[in-house]
Amino acid sequence: MINEQYKKMLEGKSVIRQLSEFATARGKEIGYENVFDYSLGNPSVPVPERFTNTLIELLKNKDSMELHGYSPSLGIASVKEKIAKSLNKRFGMDYTGNHIFPATGAAGAIAHAVRCVTKPGDEVLGIAPYFPEYQLYINLTGAHLAIVPANTADFQINFEKLEEMLTEKTAAVLINTPNNPSGAVYSAGTLKKLSELLSDKQKKYGHDIFLISDEPYREIIFDGVDAPYVSGFYDNTLSCYSFSKSLSLPGERIGYVAVNPRCRDGELICAICGQISRGIGHNCPPSLMQLGVAEVLDETADMSVYETNRNILYKELTALGFSCVKPGGTFYIFPKALEEDAVVFCKKALDYDLVLVPSDSFGVPGYFRMAYCIDTEKVERSLEALQRFVKEKY
Amino acid sequence: MINEQYKKMLEGKSVIRQLSEFATARGKEIGYENVFDYSLGNPSVPVPERFTNTLIELLKNKDSMELHGYSPSLGIASVKEKIAKSLNKRFGMDYTGNHIFPATGAAGAIAHAVRCVTKPGDEVLGIAPYFPEYQLYINLTGAHLAIVPANTADFQINFEKLEEMLTEKTAAVLINTPNNPSGAVYSAGTLKKLSELLSDKQKKYGHDIFLISDEPYREIIFDGVDAPYVSGFYDNTLSCYSFSKSLSLPGERIGYVAVNPRCRDGELICAICGQISRGIGHNCPPSLMQLGVAEVLDETADMSVYETNRNILYKELTALGFSCVKPGGTFYIFPKALEEDAVVFCKKALDYDLVLVPSDSFGVPGYFRMAYCIDTEKVERSLEALQRFVKEKY
Repeated sequence: MINEQYKKMLEGKSVIRQLSEFATARGKEIGYENVFDYSLGNPSVPVPERFTNTLIELLKNKDSMELHGYSPSLGIASVKEKIAKSLNKRFGMDYTGNHIFPATGAAGAIAHAVRCVTKPGDEVLGIAPYFPEYQLYINLTGAHLAIVPANTADFQINFEKLEEMLTEKTAAVLINTPNNPSGAVYSAGTLKKLSELLSDKQKKYGHDIFLISDEPYREIIFDGVDAPYVSGFYDNTLSCYSFSKSLSLPGERIGYVAVNPRCRDGELICAICGQISRGIGHNCPPSLMQLGVAEVLDETADMSVYETNRNILYKELTALGFSCVKPGGTFYIFPKALEEDAVVFCKKALDYDLVLVPSDSFGVPGYFRMAYCIDTEKVERSLEALQRFVKEKY
Repeated sequence: MINEQYKKMLEGKSVIRQLSEFATARGKEIGYENVFDYSLGNPSVPVPERFTNTLIELLKNKDSMELHGYSPSLGIASVKEKIAKSLNKRFGMDYTGNHIFPATGAAGAIAHAVRCVTKPGDEVLGIAPYFPEYQLYINLTGAHLAIVPANTADFQINFEKLEEMLTEKTAAVLINTPNNPSGAVYSAGTLKKLSELLSDKQKKYGHDIFLISDEPYREIIFDGVDAPYVSGFYDNTLSCYSFSKSLSLPGERIGYVAVNPRCRDGELICAICGQISRGIGHNCPPSLMQLGVAEVLDETADMSVYETNRNILYKELTALGFSCVKPGGTFYIFPKALEEDAVVFCKKALDYDLVLVPSDSFGVPGYFRMAYCIDTEKVERSLEALQRFVKEKY
């Protein structure tokens, strides 16, 4: 019979998707160019030409059976080595190819990482605000996600609450920096303090506590912001990366887990990822995509538009009286709503064709997220709607 | 801490992989052209040119953000509709796009299908001989795979045993036709009888029993063989397809689940697949591959070499006194070993650089599998080694 657990998941429809569907429907009425759709975190800049050309060259010149043949179950060795080298060079790490497991985006990477270092019933701590899909990734493994309340002063970590919630049951802590939805980038101070706290708790409880670091926005860092590499601070770190945002490839499902070489059972973790992948029928990301990204590891799409948009919105929002932490990266901004109930606030905004996402599903009440991965021209046109909205409703 | 369940999976190394690794190592000593490597089921014919050209055209002409953008969580609608239409035309079905769920190959399709229609503790019946990876796909869902002994007369279904084993606990039956490793193609008679049996048992136990049909070899059918479409015989059928073999694309992880429109909760099953996919971090197969295969649905690679090889091997094996069911499709042949213990038999064959896979892991003792997806020239050269092996050892 139909599995009831999975069937139930159908009820929990994503708020973001619902708003995005509203925006599309509204676009059909008034023209999508007139809907200020800040709902979806979908990259809005072209894929780097060198990536496209790399794929075309591979298709034209490489033997088709070799190109599209089975990837080894742990990923294509040459690809893994190139990723390790690139990370070592950029972040002063000492990965080998054996520490890299190619995965289907950061989603696949996190789902694998959590399965590796937890058993059913274990607790994973997430930090608010957090990406709502974490609930799904973690619940399906049998582990349980508990959320540490936000530090709304600057959206770094609320250490007081984290320390309280770190118990015997905690198998892993899941962080996301640069952060969706706040745009905050964890500072070296934050990461140092986190590492010290986790090390202390590991000693206290006599077992490993893994740090799972979700990093799809790692390359979207704005001018003057220092974005330290998480794994450099704490040995038991599993970094989960995706090329979705940096290369504008979200549909191609390509990313990786990078296991810190000093992580307990480091190389074993990658081997276990391979077994999990076999079992759920992944069998590694597509060969063509593995080979393609390996050639553009140190490149990104031209993402300057995100910083331009951040500047315009931050200036306008603060001028309009919004309380707002200035994003250090990503393509999100996360201001405080002008009334307590963010859902009501965002509903009122729809009257102005402003599609904003209420913060409740991110684990913080009273805020809203704007995904500004849209044309600057549209951001500029949206300001007038934003002004009218605030003036008329508040 | 490291998850012990997954860690344990590392011990169960695939016999096929081990033999393939042996073949590679031996190839380094004597030249791989001198190793008669019949271990791996890796397609040995080029990808159709039209597929390659389709990908190049898409890369050259389609907007990169659209091409590589997020696939909807249930798959790209136009792709699903094209697949439905092609199946309807070829097999007289009446699928709509809503009955098709794009998945990462047949492996991903089976893993999703099993999750949809079972709950932990349920039993799934497989039919020997069977593909050993089924154990992994099914065990990771929490369901349990039990194997119905083989009908060694013709490798159709052993109905007496199947009927015995179909109990209250049976949630699904998993079949594979054309079959890996036997090469047998289930006849219309077999499928009719199976349908009747399952229908009776559904009534008897008062719950659905789903038929999960693994069909990656559907297009590799030899001259004169009738290969009926499984789902046409039984409403509660979930067909699991892969383009790996028909288009020689095993590394690209692209296939689908096709849910019979008269299946209980048919469209719901696809929707649930989407939720499972979200949870394990799949989020659909790569967009580029979905779009690519949709343009070549009614094509295959030139697979005539498989039939040529089948003919050569079948003739020689029977001449040498092997008892052997003539394969109706696939690129496998599954003769009886010349001594009781197939592992010992295959070990002796290695002295002649003949890499054969013993049948034990396929759920039948005393047989061996030859994967003849290799050059005909090599098949021909291997005959002399086969003759010497039989003459000198038996």
